[in-house]
Amino acid sequence: MKKRPLILVTNDDGITAPGLRNLISVMIEFGDVFVVAPDSPQSGMGHAITLDSTLHIESLILDEGPQIEYSCSGTPADCVKLAVNEILNRKPDLCVSGINHGSNSSINVIYSGTMSAAIEAGIEGIPSIGFSLLDHSWNANFEPLKKHIRSITKNVLDNGLPQGTVLNVNFPKNNIKGIKVCRQAKANWVEEFDKRTNPQGKEYYWLTGKFVNQDKGEDTDIYALQNGYASVVPVQFDLTAHHFIQNLNTWNFND
Amino acid sequence: MKKRPLILVTNDDGITAPGLRNLISVMIEFGDVFVVAPDSPQSGMGHAITLDSTLHIESLILDEGPQIEYSCSGTPADCVKLAVNEILNRKPDLCVSGINHGSNSSINVIYSGTMSAAIEAGIEGIPSIGFSLLDHSWNANFEPLKKHIRSITKNVLDNGLPQGTVLNVNFPKNNIKGIKVCRQAKANWVEEFDKRTNPQGKEYYWLTGKFVNQDKGEDTDIYALQNGYASVVPVQFDLTAHHFIQNLNTWNFND
Repeated sequence: MKKRPLILVTNDDGITAPGLRNLISVMIEFGDVFVVAPDSPQSGMGHAITLDSTLHIESLILDEGPQIEYSCSGTPADCVKLAVNEILNRKPDLCVSGINHGSNSSINVIYSGTMSAAIEAGIEGIPSIGFSLLDHSWNANFEPLKKHIRSITKNVLDNGLPQGTVLNVNFPKNNIKGIKVCRQAKANWVEEFDKRTNPQGKEYYWLTGKFVNQDKGEDTDIYALQNGYASVVPVQFDLTAHHFIQNLNTWNFND
Repeated sequence: MKKRPLILVTNDDGITAPGLRNLISVMIEFGDVFVVAPDSPQSGMGHAITLDSTLHIESLILDEGPQIEYSCSGTPADCVKLAVNEILNRKPDLCVSGINHGSNSSINVIYSGTMSAAIEAGIEGIPSIGFSLLDHSWNANFEPLKKHIRSITKNVLDNGLPQGTVLNVNFPKNNIKGIKVCRQAKANWVEEFDKRTNPQGKEYYWLTGKFVNQDKGEDTDIYALQNGYASVVPVQFDLTAHHFIQNLNTWNFND
């Protein structure tokens, strides 16, 4: 009989987030679940790691169930590093991150703590998936996502993922029509800083912005999501722009 | 006569770092220099942005010179967003980040605040370069780098960079033989957590690790640096693993 897979579950919204609790409830169907998640929200942390400060972990029980859980004082990437290299006694067969409360489609993959945790696991050689729902609400309805998460998880456990590749999965808020394999849309945030004055008369800013998609392609994650489909983008962490190397070699660096 | 370029300078080691001060001293030869850099060290911040807190900036004069300088309470990515969208009245012609005290070659590009600032500028459509020196010392000697930084900067100002591409430049510590265009080496950190007990008896960890390069290629940044050359890697922020899309489309998501 095949051994039950060891599944590492993490996120960036923190260990109490409903998205994480719902992801745990699906993963215990597939294997032995080990949770190492931040003790506080870490959205927008990108691939930050804790170099200049100490890290703490706490064993805790939040919900009944077979899963083993730890909270961690660090970033999502720290959680994965600690789980894999310090807490677990064997390498996980799968890492899942999320379910994020909010989109990580398109350029958001760069800023996302959820995806950084998934990418960190990928760097460690673990097949890995980040899940996100296009609904920031704490009370978002994660129930309709579960059958799709099961399907994607089963595929990854059965087929594996090529070294250097992880999956970025985003779900539309309502009525999921199905799943589309996509590329990352070329879109970006146009920042609008909200400038205010504090009670002491000092100026400060809040970062806000408008998401602008100028990518007309019908094979992008944004297009799939706007048309009611969940998007699955394979993501790599070799950032080399290989297509530009030949051109760059014609530059004269000796002037 | 061509207008003098507007050059945005930032880093992740903070506005007082010698690497930044040396980079400013080169950039004032090329154009009007505008510095927006973190008010404290931000190494390892990855592509973190400040969503749950306020941002402050301060105008200041640290060195004599024609440059205009601001310190910012945020991350390197925040510095670029604030500079481009709030402080500057026109889009910079170039953004340079660094010179980082320490390597950002290979997988370090993912964790690097220096490179995140450069990538953020790239997302905003600005030709952008991150510079790093393989020497963590505060008193590192940046002088031998300057002629190469001039050469790379001149090339980027003359040739531009394709949309979606920025440069990651790393310099060896001693005797730079020349410049090589490279790809990112497939290497990673193997973490070794240093577990300690605090005076109150509570356990905590320091993140440490060993860098392991299993990439035997002679076209990588690590290879170039080990052989005395500066490495120039073109970096993209479309993370799509395009080569895996066709295979992924054969998966059955409807079981």
